[in-house]
Amino acid sequence: MKTVEWVDGALRLIDQTLLPDELRYVACSSCDDVCAAIRTMRVRGAPAIGVAAAFGVALGVIESRAGSADSGREAARSCGARLKATRPTAVNLAWAVDRVVDALGSARSADEVIVAALAEAQRISDEDERMCRLIGRHGAELVPDGASILTHCNAGGLATVSYGTALGVIRAAHAAGKRIHVYVDETRPLLQGARLTAWELRQDGISHTLITDNMAGHFMRLGRIDLAVVGADRIAANGNVANKIGTYSVAVLARHHGLPMYV
Amino acid sequence: MKTVEWVDGALRLIDQTLLPDELRYVACSSCDDVCAAIRTMRVRGAPAIGVAAAFGVALGVIESRAGSADSGREAARSCGARLKATRPTAVNLAWAVDRVVDALGSARSADEVIVAALAEAQRISDEDERMCRLIGRHGAELVPDGASILTHCNAGGLATVSYGTALGVIRAAHAAGKRIHVYVDETRPLLQGARLTAWELRQDGISHTLITDNMAGHFMRLGRIDLAVVGADRIAANGNVANKIGTYSVAVLARHHGLPMYV
Repeated sequence: MKTVEWVDGALRLIDQTLLPDELRYVACSSCDDVCAAIRTMRVRGAPAIGVAAAFGVALGVIESRAGSADSGREAARSCGARLKATRPTAVNLAWAVDRVVDALGSARSADEVIVAALAEAQRISDEDERMCRLIGRHGAELVPDGASILTHCNAGGLATVSYGTALGVIRAAHAAGKRIHVYVDETRPLLQGARLTAWELRQDGISHTLITDNMAGHFMRLGRIDLAVVGADRIAANGNVANKIGTYSVAVLARHHGLPMYV
Repeated sequence: MKTVEWVDGALRLIDQTLLPDELRYVACSSCDDVCAAIRTMRVRGAPAIGVAAAFGVALGVIESRAGSADSGREAARSCGARLKATRPTAVNLAWAVDRVVDALGSARSADEVIVAALAEAQRISDEDERMCRLIGRHGAELVPDGASILTHCNAGGLATVSYGTALGVIRAAHAAGKRIHVYVDETRPLLQGARLTAWELRQDGISHTLITDNMAGHFMRLGRIDLAVVGADRIAANGNVANKIGTYSVAVLARHHGLPMYV
């Protein structure tokens, strides 16, 4: 299962607003389609948004029917600016757009601009998958056998191309044979935990309990949670983390109970 | 507005499951009616449940058509046992039932049992109203002018006969002319904050912001919350408090940020 993927000349996305009731794919065939998908949160999760936006730039060039490399690059910049305006928080968005736009400099025709944009977008997508696997492999070492893990929001396969960051750690620990249990914060107001994370864990047969966000402290107090793992919208050079509302409360509660929390 | 009140030979309740969309009163005219109202949370909030149960015992005696004081008392005990089984957490329930049952000892006829039961239930109701006003008057002194106050769940007029405990403090501070603002935890899973507390504050024209439970820590961090005020299902002799899920997290967060929290 891939959350975002280039298929048959279009960007194919899982419509995350319909989960967990329905698993439906939608095709984006223009820059506007991708902007709308990001704005309406059909695609969400910083890494997935980044990859979607990268392919979105390529779509912007394709639909422009540019007659020269320069006008192709201009179409990429214009589409990229619109994509960047859709969501301010996820750092991957602006980063991925800039990476694709910057990869077009040596193209000598409109066709070469398209080829270069698609190649760079695919590279970003491939790198994301590889990074998630590496995060999973390294992170799983931090998860003791028998551990109960709290997670907030969805940092899963649905937030990335596949596999996930925080859920990648959980998947890798499960795959390594560790007996783990996951407490899933429902994550108000949009319920990404209840709708997406719980759905992913069910698909993979990983034991889990869905809780309201305000229960996390209670379960820490009871000794039922051993560690917390969350994703991040962005991490600053000084180590500061920006992530879904409620992540800070989880961090304060984890510290109060002497529990490790990994981002 | 009274949440629970004896009117025309029946117990009249606000159906709290319909708020904030509709303010509808329902009449309970039997012990079973009251049991059902408690079980379905048409009436909720420890003090309101206690008063409802007290009148429920009187209804149990009335509907029994007992021919003697002894059979009237037996009807009260039987109804009281059923009422106590409806909800385990709210201490007022068992306490109010026992108080009414214990007040029937000197009655010499079935009619006197009814009169004594109704009188004791009304006393509990009157005491509850008086206590809320006193909690409000004393608590308001702890609220600085200009304060922002966090509250969790509904400890308002709807949780009591009227006026409220935690919201009584807020109402009294507002009535004293203090400029206050209330952050209302929505209080998952049943949204008593979003549905009931926000509704009460709107009725009274008290400035407030509805937030998801996981935002409270964020606003404390920003310095936007000065103190927290919550109610309690029960308070043990050692000072331990049992209250709605999430109250503990609010307490840990308040301590971490050096903010006072009042129960």
